[in-house]
Amino acid sequence: MHHHIDATMQTCIDECLRCYQSCLEMSSGHCLELGGEHAKPGHIKLMLACSETCRATAHVMIIGSRHHKHLCAECADICADCASECERVGDMDACVRACRACAESCRAMTA
Amino acid sequence: MHHHIDATMQTCIDECLRCYQSCLEMSSGHCLELGGEHAKPGHIKLMLACSETCRATAHVMIIGSRHHKHLCAECADICADCASECERVGDMDACVRACRACAESCRAMTA
Amino acid sequence: MHHHIDATMQTCIDECLRCYQSCLEMSSGHCLELGGEHAKPGHIKLMLACSETCRATAHVMIIGSRHHKHLCAECADICADCASECERVGDMDACVRACRACAESCRAMTA
Amino acid sequence: MHHHIDATMQTCIDECLRCYQSCLEMSSGHCLELGGEHAKPGHIKLMLACSETCRATAHVMIIGSRHHKHLCAECADICADCASECERVGDMDACVRACRACAESCRAMTA
Repeated sequence: MHHHIDATMQTCIDECLRCYQSCLEMSSGHCLELGGEHAKPGHIKLMLACSETCRATAHVMIIGSRHHKHLCAECADICADCASECERVGDMDACVRACRACAESCRAMTA
Repeated sequence: MHHHIDATMQTCIDECLRCYQSCLEMSSGHCLELGGEHAKPGHIKLMLACSETCRATAHVMIIGSRHHKHLCAECADICADCASECERVGDMDACVRACRACAESCRAMTA
Repeated sequence: MHHHIDATMQTCIDECLRCYQSCLEMSSGHCLELGGEHAKPGHIKLMLACSETCRATAHVMIIGSRHHKHLCAECADICADCASECERVGDMDACVRACRACAESCRAMTA
Repeated sequence: MHHHIDATMQTCIDECLRCYQSCLEMSSGHCLELGGEHAKPGHIKLMLACSETCRATAHVMIIGSRHHKHLCAECADICADCASECERVGDMDACVRACRACAESCRAMTA
């Protein structure tokens, strides 16, 4: 169906959308329900910013713009930061995995 | 992983994101390359509006807000309109299928 | 500059973008810093869903799609709900005002 | 109202949202109506990618995440590219001005 998007880019789009969902869903659900360190503004802000960056990066790849490489580089950085922060806070395994997978896939797109 | 989102809602989120990608990708690629009726402002505007509505509907479901039902109803309507328009213009089969599947899934969420 | 968008619609776009900013900014800052009732998942989810609905409604108006009326109706509803909830929780005056102004402007677009 | 966002950042948010509107509105209206070079996939894709990058950059500033500087840098780059391309194609003065103003404002945020 997506004849302008090769398999590697489609995988990256899928990882970005998965990480977008994971960060948005866990920040507005899991983290606020747990409270404490999980609900601190800094943690929620990082997760929401990571979610939006993944969403916009997928969007620019879907459009088919050659500017996607720059956004992929930023997305890889913020996903790596978000994975580290989620690991530190703990009980965020699904989000850590989604962020790591997205960071790796985005990094590969910048090569 | 998504313990606050049941299987039916996750399917609807997936259909929304698939239709979002299909409408955005085909409007900015396939349709503009074909030109003629495919590149008319009315056709592209409907596809971009459908794409954004699907994206926002998925977003509100991922957040876990009870307001998702209202957006799902609007999303079902615009996807049905977009499917009909794409069928009329022709050579848009993948988009017709994505819009129909999304409309059906969103309609079921409003029950 | 925006010759396809008349003054009434531009005002509605502006109100939507103002309410989008207010709900997103206060939920990820003010509310999480206050904690207590302000940081409860239900309150944050409503504010984030309202923010996204405003953002998408503005987007569909900017595209110039005739489907904007349906989104304006939903946007007016969720903004009215968000205004009431923010008034109940208290110390959310700027957000109450932004939601009320957006609801009124969106309601007028559906006429 | 926005006590976590200083005047310089609010100006940058406003410029990003103005450029987002200008690029989205002109690509789906003005450019498709003119046809010819204005409706070529490469031109529309750049405008849509610029629009989305501005939108996401504003979003991350509104959230209050410290990661905004990276997105501001990317946003300044794509806005500068979009301004040059719009100037080359011609009859895009409003968009050239919005892109230049946004690029300058975003560049200042990265300092």
